[in-house]
Amino acid sequence: MKINGEHYRAIWLDDDNQTVKVINQKVLPHVLEIVDLTNMEAAAAAIETMLVRGAPLIGATGAYGMALAMLQDPSDTMLEKSHARLLKTRPTAVNLRWALDKLFGHLKPLEPHERAAVAYKRAGEICDQDVAICEAIGRNGLKIIKKLVESKDAAQPINILTHCNAGWVATVDWGTALAPIYMAHDLGIPVHVWVDETRPRNQGANLTAWELGQHGVPHTVIVDNVGGHLMQHGMVDFCIVGTDRTTATGDVCNKIGTYLKALAAFDNDVPFYVALPHTTIDWRMRDGFKIPIEERDPNEVHEIQGIDADGKITRVRVTPKESDAANYGFDVTPARLVTGLITERGICDASEEGLLSLYPEEKSNEQHDYT
Amino acid sequence: MKINGEHYRAIWLDDDNQTVKVINQKVLPHVLEIVDLTNMEAAAAAIETMLVRGAPLIGATGAYGMALAMLQDPSDTMLEKSHARLLKTRPTAVNLRWALDKLFGHLKPLEPHERAAVAYKRAGEICDQDVAICEAIGRNGLKIIKKLVESKDAAQPINILTHCNAGWVATVDWGTALAPIYMAHDLGIPVHVWVDETRPRNQGANLTAWELGQHGVPHTVIVDNVGGHLMQHGMVDFCIVGTDRTTATGDVCNKIGTYLKALAAFDNDVPFYVALPHTTIDWRMRDGFKIPIEERDPNEVHEIQGIDADGKITRVRVTPKESDAANYGFDVTPARLVTGLITERGICDASEEGLLSLYPEEKSNEQHDYT
Repeated sequence: MKINGEHYRAIWLDDDNQTVKVINQKVLPHVLEIVDLTNMEAAAAAIETMLVRGAPLIGATGAYGMALAMLQDPSDTMLEKSHARLLKTRPTAVNLRWALDKLFGHLKPLEPHERAAVAYKRAGEICDQDVAICEAIGRNGLKIIKKLVESKDAAQPINILTHCNAGWVATVDWGTALAPIYMAHDLGIPVHVWVDETRPRNQGANLTAWELGQHGVPHTVIVDNVGGHLMQHGMVDFCIVGTDRTTATGDVCNKIGTYLKALAAFDNDVPFYVALPHTTIDWRMRDGFKIPIEERDPNEVHEIQGIDADGKITRVRVTPKESDAANYGFDVTPARLVTGLITERGICDASEEGLLSLYPEEKSNEQHDYT
Repeated sequence: MKINGEHYRAIWLDDDNQTVKVINQKVLPHVLEIVDLTNMEAAAAAIETMLVRGAPLIGATGAYGMALAMLQDPSDTMLEKSHARLLKTRPTAVNLRWALDKLFGHLKPLEPHERAAVAYKRAGEICDQDVAICEAIGRNGLKIIKKLVESKDAAQPINILTHCNAGWVATVDWGTALAPIYMAHDLGIPVHVWVDETRPRNQGANLTAWELGQHGVPHTVIVDNVGGHLMQHGMVDFCIVGTDRTTATGDVCNKIGTYLKALAAFDNDVPFYVALPHTTIDWRMRDGFKIPIEERDPNEVHEIQGIDADGKITRVRVTPKESDAANYGFDVTPARLVTGLITERGICDASEEGLLSLYPEEKSNEQHDYT
């Protein structure tokens, strides 16, 4: 998507075809800082410090991290070391493990001198594949927007509410939840996005608002408390969010606060969609409430990062210094509150039947232990 | 309630029995600044700039503002001027108008030289009356907590979730929603409060957390997105909030985001109570959705105030400078989601029948035009 009129991906190679370039998401939206990753450790640190985030982008960065490692030293030792080092950066990231295992599998049988070139090639393919998946999600989600356009006064934009960031900077391009919105906007369909701030890390205010603004999509930032009021007053046509993990039965684990918006959507007959690549479906998990919810650093609640009057990026504390804080990262939206799941293969009900209708090959998958 | 072990009210007279003292709520919780109000204009500015906030405290400050005016100049001209000036500070505050009209009515028939003393006396009575109302709300709400204690493992604290600040710093003492909690705590009943941060103005993180902490009540600050998750996991025994306006039919207009918590409470069978003095009941309003919702300064969304690493109170911007923001101040929780209303007269259903059972005199009140 576009930054200041120019098309970007969230990860790309420099003209030397070796240096990996990413956007420092820790300082967005205040500063656009492009960071060069020139060795494996730099790639690992970029994932670890959340300079890059979003499951697909983490996977792509991990893959390029192995390519950088093979440039430095294509030995078996380095192959194993870099796989282990990169995996350790975000141990629970499913896409990361998948990408690293894939690269490792491709590289291991090769002669050391062949490895770097193949690693770059495979990492590039992982990126292209992610773009294709997001584009397909976008095309499928676009159908929902087109249907809403038919039912609405032509002069009114389609109002869409989203939570957190499931946009192009979380993937390689397009994003998941935002892909249909970009596609509609590019086709000239008037859309307007209500962007949930998404405390504590403010991915909505910092990233979603930034990427929509850079691409020219009309949007309005709201605090996380507002969505219910908007839905009560007919100001939201549909909600769309991403997901970190979806159960085989359609329960959706996503950024904390998603459940509250799904409740409000259900209470006001506003459709609530979840956009996801098939890689986030956990076919072995049948009950969303069994997904362990990560408790993160309470300082993310105590402190907020922003830019001060002098243009300096700074953190301020909002709570009394004696107060405790708790920081649950995700919540689970039960399938009953979800209107539909939008995947790269189509739109389905948030149910086992729905998901299996799109992924029939999973029916006979013996890996399911249905714990 | 207590600050650092010492009992305070939110507004009081200095030893000279003339100077009015209040706590500057704009710099809490980072600095405890006691401000002297020595003339009417200072009192008006304190209300206008939200140095004091909360309907009952605004009313009390207005009343003392008229007393200060009468000290300066007890003429009819000043009486009218100070009434008009103080009323203009927060034109929609019902308690403020009530207090100012009351003082005006008392003072107008008097000789100028009698006015100052009477004004101070009446203002003091308004404060004492507010304390008595809040104490009664506390006693009534305490019954709910005591009932929960009976049904719960004695080793476990009662977990209470609250939104925004309906505590003693919003009133003269006790608060409304927090009054039952303070009473339980003072009786040795173990309570623990989940404090919603309450963006955009962070009254939860800044004020509720501070006053609970100063009084010694265990509490944990959470971002506004978390409550649903806690309720899904049995971590909230009941919710209690205040209200800015309650309709004759029990719809509750309160700080933006209240509705989302009420939805989550309903979805998880968690009792959801609203604490209110009768003065916030709008007997003429029968449909909460007809209450006009104030749109406030978008900069409250763009920027957050806190204390930086150097101990300086500062504001940081969290959104891209090109992004718009919308700032709706309140939302309406329909009566169907409210378990009960706690007033100074008792607890009732959130319904017309419920409210009239506590306030039967309103049945025949001809002022009702039921618009």
